[in-house]
Formats: sequence, structure tokens, C-alpha cells
Amino acid sequence: MRKPRLMTPGPAMVPEDVLLELARPVIHHRSAEAKDVITEVSAGLKEVLQTKNDVMILTASGTGAMEAAAVNTVPPGGKALILNAGHFAARWASICKAFEINAVSLDFEWGQAVDPDRVAEALKANPDTVCVMGTLSETSTGTGHPVEAIGRVVAETPAVFAVDGISGVGAMECRADDWGIDLLCVGSQKALMLPPGLAFISVSPKAWAKIDSFESHSYYFNLKAARSKMKEFDTPYTPAHTLILALRTALRRIKEEGLENVWQRHRRMSEACQAGVQALGLELFSSRPAEGLTAFRIPAGLKDSQIRNKLTERFGIATVGGQGKLKGHIVRIGHMGYTDEIDVIGTIAALEMTLAELGVDIEPGRGVTAAQHVLMGQASAVGQG
Amino acid sequence: MRKPRLMTPGPAMVPEDVLLELARPVIHHRSAEAKDVITEVSAGLKEVLQTKNDVMILTASGTGAMEAAAVNTVPPGGKALILNAGHFAARWASICKAFEINAVSLDFEWGQAVDPDRVAEALKANPDTVCVMGTLSETSTGTGHPVEAIGRVVAETPAVFAVDGISGVGAMECRADDWGIDLLCVGSQKALMLPPGLAFISVSPKAWAKIDSFESHSYYFNLKAARSKMKEFDTPYTPAHTLILALRTALRRIKEEGLENVWQRHRRMSEACQAGVQALGLELFSSRPAEGLTAFRIPAGLKDSQIRNKLTERFGIATVGGQGKLKGHIVRIGHMGYTDEIDVIGTIAALEMTLAELGVDIEPGRGVTAAQHVLMGQASAVGQG
Repeated sequence: MRKPRLMTPGPAMVPEDVLLELARPVIHHRSAEAKDVITEVSAGLKEVLQTKNDVMILTASGTGAMEAAAVNTVPPGGKALILNAGHFAARWASICKAFEINAVSLDFEWGQAVDPDRVAEALKANPDTVCVMGTLSETSTGTGHPVEAIGRVVAETPAVFAVDGISGVGAMECRADDWGIDLLCVGSQKALMLPPGLAFISVSPKAWAKIDSFESHSYYFNLKAARSKMKEFDTPYTPAHTLILALRTALRRIKEEGLENVWQRHRRMSEACQAGVQALGLELFSSRPAEGLTAFRIPAGLKDSQIRNKLTERFGIATVGGQGKLKGHIVRIGHMGYTDEIDVIGTIAALEMTLAELGVDIEPGRGVTAAQHVLMGQASAVGQG
Repeated sequence: MRKPRLMTPGPAMVPEDVLLELARPVIHHRSAEAKDVITEVSAGLKEVLQTKNDVMILTASGTGAMEAAAVNTVPPGGKALILNAGHFAARWASICKAFEINAVSLDFEWGQAVDPDRVAEALKANPDTVCVMGTLSETSTGTGHPVEAIGRVVAETPAVFAVDGISGVGAMECRADDWGIDLLCVGSQKALMLPPGLAFISVSPKAWAKIDSFESHSYYFNLKAARSKMKEFDTPYTPAHTLILALRTALRRIKEEGLENVWQRHRRMSEACQAGVQALGLELFSSRPAEGLTAFRIPAGLKDSQIRNKLTERFGIATVGGQGKLKGHIVRIGHMGYTDEIDVIGTIAALEMTLAELGVDIEPGRGVTAAQHVLMGQASAVGQG
């Protein structure tokens, strides 16, 4: 028997009661019942994104929300500043290119955090920037960026701040309104505990002013159309409303646990995973780890496929490798959404056995013990190897 | 007890085994298992769309596929000919406007079919047309357009033919390759027996030549990116892969029934519904009814909400009213996908009782009998009222 454990940084595991919602008979998306669902999830999304502004619901992957943020706020030829520190940050630049937005790339080494001071300098050098495009949790490197500090910098300028919070929101503290995030993009298949298929985007009054200043090249992702329908708790086109129904259950779970507690659980899982990995002598890839995933460098002499395949074949645990230039160099373990401390310990235990069987000189139990110490709130005596 | 019956022209009812697929634990969309699923549904989609060309899978409503067809084939300033005979045909024009495509509208009265001769004339008058944008089943009027004949006209010109087959494909005969449809757009929530959330689009070599001739303003809906990923049975961005898993089951059902049989079932349901409605003295709205839905004019002195609300409240039957300028003037009954003859008869029976209770002078049983005669393969003696 191989029990599947989806320890990937999205899609992540989905609670059983949320899955069962998906199996309910389909209802019409413009029925009174469907509107009640959207009314409730609309309030729940505001809480999770920590915003008083409307959160638009898009039927798309998270990338669709990023496209919506970019094309609706920056006209062709307008300037965007990309805080480029990974594969997904680079996606902002690709979107800009496709829509003839003038993207200025502020590059940081992959695995390093964006430096807010450099953002301030870049905005001084580019005072005509319409939108700063950043990332909360860079999934490709496992890095959490200091979005609060960057938001303070951007808030002092006429630019708006668009943040890819796809793998971050719900997995780490993020407060759209308090932190000056004008457009916060979220995907359903990460910490929100749903399958993929929905994306969400909050829009601040500062962002609406940009959006209302021109007619964007957008139809499906037109935010003005979404806003006008959202006033009636509706969407411009037929939404994936079985997923919206399931979202209601997922959001009720978050409400019940409490958003602050959800963040704290992710922080504990993150610290435990980091401690476990390091106790095995593995090196974390990121200098400022995100809280929804842990990336570590592959030990010399091993291939990522050896580690990842054994984890899957022997223990049913799915992880992901590196993307782009990190392909073959790192392994990434997701711990977000419907994942608990025992899932993390189990993954560390499996990693220990996997590495030992691959001939790495490690002491089984050492990683698990380090993770346990973190979870028990103690400084781990063996945590730093 | 009110047993829900979703007799709307999309979303439509979803088979129980398809719903249960949605409740399965989420798998990673780039796992070997997920690729196997995409490999199988890719073949199934080719069969349902009757094409040898790749069918792209988009996570979006059907409108997303329409946007993809338009923006990828027609550059800004390029000309499109819109076969405008309803609310959804007009959507083509709205998409063109958003992306600065020069849309020439060939207008037909709502409820009338597009005349292929007028299309030929329009193409003669507009030889620089890049794309003709039409509709297989105009959901807003319940009209089936003569796509085969239009396709023959377009095939003789350099223009490509994009067809919104969202509520038509699977509900009525449609052969992408044989009929000269270069881009066929389909939605998941109609005759394909899935919840909403996926869209499909087939692309002919003639269309690829247009697409490859310029860089379109598209990212999420970029068809070149979709093509390149589809070669590996993958998608550019995280797809709604629980829906893709469910699609596999739905396509297996279609394969088992046989596509020709599926079309015939829809034709029978359509003719039975038309006969039943007409036997009650009601007037069909369309002069060339589509086979996935039936639209009838509201009898004088009644409101659509009176009829539709009673159908829902008393019998659990959901229908839809008119859209745009038809609001308040028609009722539309869907009979597509996971709908059978008994569902149609039940709906006619409910309509009889509803109208009788609303004071319309009708003879209960007359509509049902007419529908039964059609289903028994006999010309109904009372069918024409």
C-alpha cells in the first residue's frame, strides 16, 4: 500500500469535507443559492486577504489573476517595476512583454530576499512607474519576501503594488490593506485548501483609480466587468461554481481555526521542516525561507530524481524539484493548507530513510527529533547539525 | 421534498460517477498519473470535436476559449466578420473591441439562422477578413446555425472560421475538420457533462498559420504556449486538474454511448421538447431550433418569472429566461448532456401543470403525449397544436 501524501507547494492536500462539496449536484450559478454562496465566500476572502476591498473571483489559475493585475493597471507603454528574484517573479515580466508594458527588472539573486531599499532607489530612478510587481512567497526558491516593508516604500509613490500571493496567502502573514498591497493575487490550490481552478484578486481604491483611467486590452480578465458583477455577488462569465461552493467550506475551516492560528501553524511547520532538514546536514536554499514550503540543496553526488522518486515510490510522498536554472539543484517540500505537524514529521522521517538508503551518512531520527523540538517550542539541541 | 432538476442550457446536470471523481484526493498536475489522464482526454476531445488536430485545455469559462481564438488569430487592426444573431455572437464583437480588432458585424434577426449566402457576400465585400466568428448553438435564442454550410463558404477564402460551440458541441452534430471549423470553442458545463471551469479549443493548420504570423497580446490564453505544452500532455499553467480527471469519466461515457448516438439522443429530446411545447399552444422562439435547448415565447398576460419560479418552487426544475433584449420575453429549457427523454417529459408535464395553475387554458397531458409520440418515432397527431 502506498498512501498518497501531497507535500508539494501547490497543489496541496484538500480536506475531505471540501472534496465532498465538489461531488454535490451542480446548481445554476445565477440562482439565489449560488448568490448566497458568493456572498459568504466574498466576506471570507476579505478576511483571508485582510482587506476591506472587494475580492474578485476568477475562473483561472493564479497566473490569470497576475495577468488581470498587470493589464488592467498598466497601459501599453506604461512602466512596471519587477522585483525579480525567481521563476514566478519573472512571470510578471513575461506578462508585461506580452502586453507591451515597459518592464524594468530589479534583479536579486535567486534564494535571496528583495531588498526594500533597492526598491526605493529603483522607484526614485523610475518615478514614472505605474505598478511595482512583487511576490509574497517565491515558490521557485522557497523565499518569503518582506512585502510589508516593500509596501511601505511603494505607498509613498504614485505607483501601485501588485503582489503574487499565490503560494503565500494563507500560509504566511499577509495584510493587503495594512501593508499597502493594491492588488493581491491568490490561487485556490495552495493554502486555501482547494483544487486548482480559481484565482482571487483584491483591488485597492488606488488601483481602481489606475484601472479607471484607461481602457485595457482585456476581456475575460477585465476587472471593471468583474467589479460591476461583484456588486451583485455575480461574475461576468460562468464561474467554476462547484469550486466556489467548496471554497465556502474551506473558508469556514479557516474561520474556525482563526487566521492568526493558521499563520502560526504554517510558521511552526516551516520552522520544524527547516530544523529537520538542517539536522540532516542539508543546506536550505533560501536565505529568508517562506512559510509554505522548504527548499534544500541536493547533497553532492545525488540526483534530485533519486531522492524524489524514492520518496514517492516508497512512501507515497510527492515533492517537487527545481524550476528553470534550479532544475536538478534543489528539492522543495510543501507544507501549506491542509497539512499538519505530523505530515511534516512524517516527511522528514521519510527523507531520513530515503537519504540513508541512498548511501548518505546520516543518523535516522536526528531530523525528526529536531523538528519535534521546534514543535514543542524548544530550541533544538541538534537543530543546526 | 423538492428534487432538483437542472434543465438550464448550461450548466447542465453532471453524472454521479463524474461528480465522485471530483471528490478524489488531488494529485499533482505534472505527475505521471496526471499526464496519463491528459493523454486520454486529449484523444477523447478530438473524437467529440471531430478533429485530428490537438485540442487545447484551458482553465476558464468558454468565453476564455473565445478570447483565445480571437486574440491569437487576428492582430490589432485586423478584420473579423461577426455572424451576429444573438447575445453570445455579440460577445465575439465585445472581445474584438477590447483587443482593437476591427469587427464587421453581419447582423441577423435574433431567433433566425445565419444565412450562408449573406456570409459569402460579406466575405466578398471584405476580402481582408482574417477570421469569421460564428456560433453553433446560440444559447440566447435557442437557434442552431448552419455551421457546415458556412464553413464551406469560409473555406474558400483566406479567412479562418472560429465557432463558439460552447452549448452546441456534444448536443448537436458538429465536425470540426469536415466542416471547415478552424477554431472550435467548447465549454465543460454543457453537453460534456462536467461542472463549469474548463474550456477547450481545437486549432486547424490554417489557424496555426495565422497564429504563427504575429505575436499576439496574450499570455494566459496564448495558444502557442498551450500548443508547446500540449506536445508533452501538459498545460502552461496549473490546470483545474480535478475537472480534467472528471472529464476523463465524462468522455468515457460519451465513447460508450457513441458520439452519433449522443447526437441522436439530443435530436430526439429536442424534437420531443419542441413538440410538447407547441402542443400546449406555445410558440417556439427560433425558426431553426438548436438541439441542446428549446426557447419559447411567454404567453400573453404572463411573466417569465411566474412560470419559471413555479417550475422551480413546485417541481425543482430550473430553467432560464431571456437575455439582453429577450429578457422577459422567452423561457429556455435546456436538454443537454446528462439529460434523458424522461427528464424532458417530466419538464413538459411540469410546464403543463404550471401553466394550468397560472390560468392558461390548456389540456394537461397534451404536451406530454406529443413528446411521447416523437420519442416513439411517430408523427404526433397533436404535435402542431
